[in-house]
Amino acid sequence: MDRIRQACDNPDAEVFFLVGGTQTNTTVINSVIDSFQGVIAVDSGHINTHEAGAVERNGHKVVALPAAEGGKLSAASLGSWLDEFFADSNYEHCVIPGMVYITFPTELGALYTREEISAIYDVCRDNDLVLYVDGARLGYGITADGSEIALPWLSGHCDVFCIGGTKVGAICGEAVVFTHGNAPKHFFSRIKQQGALLAKGRLAGIQFDTLFTDGLYFKIARHANEMAYKMRDIFVAKGYEIAYESKTNQQFVLVPESRLGHLLENIIFDEWGHDGCGNTICRFVTSWATTDADLQALESVL
Amino acid sequence: MDRIRQACDNPDAEVFFLVGGTQTNTTVINSVIDSFQGVIAVDSGHINTHEAGAVERNGHKVVALPAAEGGKLSAASLGSWLDEFFADSNYEHCVIPGMVYITFPTELGALYTREEISAIYDVCRDNDLVLYVDGARLGYGITADGSEIALPWLSGHCDVFCIGGTKVGAICGEAVVFTHGNAPKHFFSRIKQQGALLAKGRLAGIQFDTLFTDGLYFKIARHANEMAYKMRDIFVAKGYEIAYESKTNQQFVLVPESRLGHLLENIIFDEWGHDGCGNTICRFVTSWATTDADLQALESVL
Amino acid sequence: MDRIRQACDNPDAEVFFLVGGTQTNTTVINSVIDSFQGVIAVDSGHINTHEAGAVERNGHKVVALPAAEGGKLSAASLGSWLDEFFADSNYEHCVIPGMVYITFPTELGALYTREEISAIYDVCRDNDLVLYVDGARLGYGITADGSEIALPWLSGHCDVFCIGGTKVGAICGEAVVFTHGNAPKHFFSRIKQQGALLAKGRLAGIQFDTLFTDGLYFKIARHANEMAYKMRDIFVAKGYEIAYESKTNQQFVLVPESRLGHLLENIIFDEWGHDGCGNTICRFVTSWATTDADLQALESVL
Amino acid sequence: MDRIRQACDNPDAEVFFLVGGTQTNTTVINSVIDSFQGVIAVDSGHINTHEAGAVERNGHKVVALPAAEGGKLSAASLGSWLDEFFADSNYEHCVIPGMVYITFPTELGALYTREEISAIYDVCRDNDLVLYVDGARLGYGITADGSEIALPWLSGHCDVFCIGGTKVGAICGEAVVFTHGNAPKHFFSRIKQQGALLAKGRLAGIQFDTLFTDGLYFKIARHANEMAYKMRDIFVAKGYEIAYESKTNQQFVLVPESRLGHLLENIIFDEWGHDGCGNTICRFVTSWATTDADLQALESVL
Repeated sequence: MDRIRQACDNPDAEVFFLVGGTQTNTTVINSVIDSFQGVIAVDSGHINTHEAGAVERNGHKVVALPAAEGGKLSAASLGSWLDEFFADSNYEHCVIPGMVYITFPTELGALYTREEISAIYDVCRDNDLVLYVDGARLGYGITADGSEIALPWLSGHCDVFCIGGTKVGAICGEAVVFTHGNAPKHFFSRIKQQGALLAKGRLAGIQFDTLFTDGLYFKIARHANEMAYKMRDIFVAKGYEIAYESKTNQQFVLVPESRLGHLLENIIFDEWGHDGCGNTICRFVTSWATTDADLQALESVL
Repeated sequence: MDRIRQACDNPDAEVFFLVGGTQTNTTVINSVIDSFQGVIAVDSGHINTHEAGAVERNGHKVVALPAAEGGKLSAASLGSWLDEFFADSNYEHCVIPGMVYITFPTELGALYTREEISAIYDVCRDNDLVLYVDGARLGYGITADGSEIALPWLSGHCDVFCIGGTKVGAICGEAVVFTHGNAPKHFFSRIKQQGALLAKGRLAGIQFDTLFTDGLYFKIARHANEMAYKMRDIFVAKGYEIAYESKTNQQFVLVPESRLGHLLENIIFDEWGHDGCGNTICRFVTSWATTDADLQALESVL
Repeated sequence: MDRIRQACDNPDAEVFFLVGGTQTNTTVINSVIDSFQGVIAVDSGHINTHEAGAVERNGHKVVALPAAEGGKLSAASLGSWLDEFFADSNYEHCVIPGMVYITFPTELGALYTREEISAIYDVCRDNDLVLYVDGARLGYGITADGSEIALPWLSGHCDVFCIGGTKVGAICGEAVVFTHGNAPKHFFSRIKQQGALLAKGRLAGIQFDTLFTDGLYFKIARHANEMAYKMRDIFVAKGYEIAYESKTNQQFVLVPESRLGHLLENIIFDEWGHDGCGNTICRFVTSWATTDADLQALESVL
Repeated sequence: MDRIRQACDNPDAEVFFLVGGTQTNTTVINSVIDSFQGVIAVDSGHINTHEAGAVERNGHKVVALPAAEGGKLSAASLGSWLDEFFADSNYEHCVIPGMVYITFPTELGALYTREEISAIYDVCRDNDLVLYVDGARLGYGITADGSEIALPWLSGHCDVFCIGGTKVGAICGEAVVFTHGNAPKHFFSRIKQQGALLAKGRLAGIQFDTLFTDGLYFKIARHANEMAYKMRDIFVAKGYEIAYESKTNQQFVLVPESRLGHLLENIIFDEWGHDGCGNTICRFVTSWATTDADLQALESVL
C-alpha cells in the first residue's frame, strides 16, 4: 500500500486490494452511493454492457448517457443532462444520480485529456456527485503515446479510482484508491460482503508490491502498448482500416466478410460489432507476453 | 376475481390484487424472471423512467431500446436487437433478457394495434421471453377511440398483464392477471415480501368487484377519454399545438414560454419536457371526476 | 402532519405517510442503515418472523437475539451481546449492526416501561445504533391499562417510530416519524423506490388528519382494548388459561385439543403455536368494530 | 473438470470454477433457490456467522436452526421444524425454505456419518428442498480419521457441493459440482454477475487439475490432519482441555486466562469464544506447510 501511496505522491490515499474487476466496481459503487441512487456512465461503458448486470443486481441503476467520440463522457453533455434532470419537478420519481463513472482508457482505447477530466470533476463537485475512474486497464492508458495522465495527477482529480492488476500481469487483484481520506466506514466488511476479499489476502499485496517496485507495472504496460502500435502498423500495411483510433494495447480493426473466416481460424480475437458496411469490428489485444515473433506470425496470416 | 375472469372470457386466468403500481411491476418482474435476467423496455417506458429505480433495486437491469413513434416498442427492432444480441459470442457477459415490458396505452397515450402486439408476442415466444403488458391505465386504452384491444383478446396475446385500479377510480389496488395457468409458485409470499399485500385485502377485491359490475370500470374510463377529446379540441381552438397524438385521458400540449407562467398559476398539470423550439411539453389529465364545467374553466384560462 | 407533530408535542418531528406495514419497515430500515449493516431484533420480532423475508430481500440481515418475557428486548442482554460482538477480533467478517428494532406493544401484547425503553436507547446511543420503534399497533399500546408511554415521551426516546393506521381503523397507511431532524435525504425517492408511496397520497393524509382530530385514534384503540379485557374475562370465566398476559387488543388463549375444532367452526382466530402440553395457543383480536353483542356471541360458543 | 468428474466417479457431474468461498456460496444459493425463498442452516453455520451478511445482501434469509453436537444439523430436528412450519396456516407470511445448507466438515471440525447425511437428504427430498454441502474444507473432512465420506458417495447424496481449493493449497478457487445434471441455466452469467468469475479462468482449472492428479489434494489435506492430531496430543500432554472433538486440521483448545497473553504473543491463532468458566476457546489450524519443527516450536511455547 505504501508503494502505491508513493506512486500517487499522495500520503492521504487509502488503498485496498480486491479480487477482480466486477467486485471492485460493485463494491466501490455500492459503498459510495446510497441505495436509492444511480450511477451515470456512457452507454458504451463497461458497467453498462459487460458486467452481466452486477451493478443492478446490487440495486443501482446505471443511467446511460450517449458516449462522445472514442467512448468518452463529455463534461458538457453531462452538465446539461444534470441541469435538465434537476429542473424537472418530477425528478424525485426518477433515479437520482450519486456517482459518475468513467474508464481510463475508455473501452475503445481513447484517452481523456487533463482538461476533460478536470471539467468532468468540476461538474461532479457542483452536483454533489462522486467521480470514480475505473482503471482496470490504467497502466495501458498512462503509458500510451500522448497520454497526459499520471498517477499523482489522477489522484488529485477524482474521488476514487482503481488500478487493475489482472489485466496488467497479476494473477488476480485490483487496487482501489480513495484519494482524500474518503474511504467508506467499515470498507473491509463491505469487501467481504461483496465476496471481493481474497482469502489469501497477502497475495494481492505481494503482487502489487512487486508491480510497483522499479516501475514494473508501467514497463509491462508500455511494452504491450508498443507491441500494439506495431500491430496496428501491420494491419494498416496489409490494407485493413482501423475502426477506432486507440493508443493502448487494444486495437480495433475492420475486417471484411471475405477475410473473417480465415482470421478466426488462425488468430484469437473478439468480434466487437459491425460497422454497417459489411465489415466486422474486431478487437486485437497485446500483453506483457506479446513478442515480435508473435507479430510476425500475425503478419503472415493477414 | 371471478368477475375479472369473466371480463377476460378466460376461465384459466389467475388473478391477484396488489396495492399499487410500483409494487405490481416489481413483484411481477421479480417473480417471472430469474435473478441474472433483465427486462426489455423502450427508453421512454415507465419502468425505465419514473419508478425511482425500483426494478434495479430488485436486482434487474432494464434494457432500454429506442422507442418508436408514440412510445411504442417495434416488433421488428426488438427482433433484430435480439438476433444481434445472441449472435455476439460474448453475450453471457451481458444481461440476458427474460421479459419484454410494454404499456397499453403507452406513456404518450398511443395505442398498439392487434397486429403490433401479436408481432411482439411472436418474437417473445421465439426467444423464450415473457410478455408483460403494464395496464396501469388499461381502461383508458381499451375505451379509446379506435382501440382494437379488449380484455379477452389481450388475455390471449400476452403472458401476464395488470389492470390498474388506482388510476381508474379506485382508492388503491391493481389486479394482476396470469393468462394461461402460469402464475409463479407461492405468488402470495412474493407479494407479501415485496410489500405489495394490502393488509385489508378484502378492500381490493370489493373495489374490483364493483368496478367490473355492469362495466363501471369502462364507463369511468370512457368518460375521462371523452372529456380529454373535448379538452384537446379546446386547446387546438385556442391555437395550441399538440405534442403527441393521444387517444386517452392524457393529452400532451405544446405551451409557449410566454403562456407557461399564466397556466401554471391557474391549472394543475405536469411539465413533461421541451420540444427544443422554446415550447414546454405539458401533460393535462382528465379523470372520472372531470366535468364540462371544469373544461369551461380551463377554456377561460387559456 | 401538523396534527401528528402536535400530538407528539415535537415541532422538529418529520412525518411521512406510507402505504403499509411491510414497506414501512423495509423503507425505514433500508434508508437508515448502510448496505453492509444489519438490524437487531428479538427472535419473535415481526421482521424476523412474518415479513416473508422482506428485510433480507432488501439486503439486510435480521440479527435475532433471544426474547425476554412477553417478547421484549432486554437492554442488559442487548448490551452484553454488543460488548461481546465488538470484542471479537473477527467481527468485521460478521454483519455489523446498525439499528435496533423493537415493537410497541410487542407481538405478544406486552408493554415496555419507560425505564426499559430508556435503557435500550442508552445502549443504542453508546453503540452508534439507531433505535426504531415499530408501532403498527401503537394506539393499542398507548391506551392499554398500565401503559406508561405516550406520544410525546416516545418521540423523545427513540430515533424513528411509526404509527400504524391500518390496524387502527384506516383503510391503509402508516405514518413514519423521525424525531429529531434526522430524516434521510431524499426520503420521498426512497419511499417511491420501495413501492411504499400511495399514488393517491392525499388519502393517507386525510385519514391521519381525521384520526388525530379530537383523539379519535386513541378512542378507537381504547375501545378495542376494553373489549379485549372483557373478552379475556369471558375466556377465564369459561375455564380457559391465558398463554401470555396481554394488555392490548390481542389476547392469547390456550385452547385444549378437545375444544379446538368446535371453536374453529364458529369463530375467526389464528393458531399461534403450541404450548407443548397438548394445547394450541390461539390469538383472538378485537377492533374498533367489536361490540358487546359480539362478545356475547363468543361467550355462547365457548 | 474431467479429473473432478473422475474423482467423483460421476460422469453426469457438472463442474464450475469460482474465485472464492463467499462468492461460491452466494452464487450457488442465489442460482438454486427463488427470490422469495430462504436457506436453512444451523446457527453456527458459516453463512449465518462469518459471511458478513453476503447471503442476505443477495436477498435470502438464513433460517437458523439450533446446532446439534459438533455444529451438525440433525435430520430429526430439521424434519420436525419443517412439519411444524408447513402446518402453520400463516406460513406464507414467513420465509419459505428452498435449500438446506450443511458444511463438511463442520465449523467445529465434526464429521457427518453416511447415515446422517442420507437422513438429511431424505428429509430434503420429501420437502422439495435442495441439499447443498459446503466443502470449503472438504479435503480435511474426507481424509480425517474415521471419515466415512468419499467424493463418489457424496456425489450421490446431495444436489450440489463445493470443493474448496483456497484452504487446501490453491492460490484461490473453489470447484462447484452439480451432481445430477441439475446445473442452473446460464450458470456462467450468474457467476459473472456475482463477481465470482476469475478473469484468468485458466488458472483455476490448472490448479484443480494439478490438485486432482495423483491424489495431491488428499495428500495435502491428510498431511495437515496428521499434524493436527500431533498438535492436539501436544496440547493435551501440556494439560490443556479440548473444547470440541475435531478430527480435522482445526483444533479447538480451552486456554485459561492466565496463559492467553503468553500464547497470543508467540503463536498465531483465533479466539473463538468463551466457555463461561474463564477459559477462551482458541482455534489452532495446521496446513500443508506445517512441519514437525513447527510443532516442536509450539510445544516449547506452551
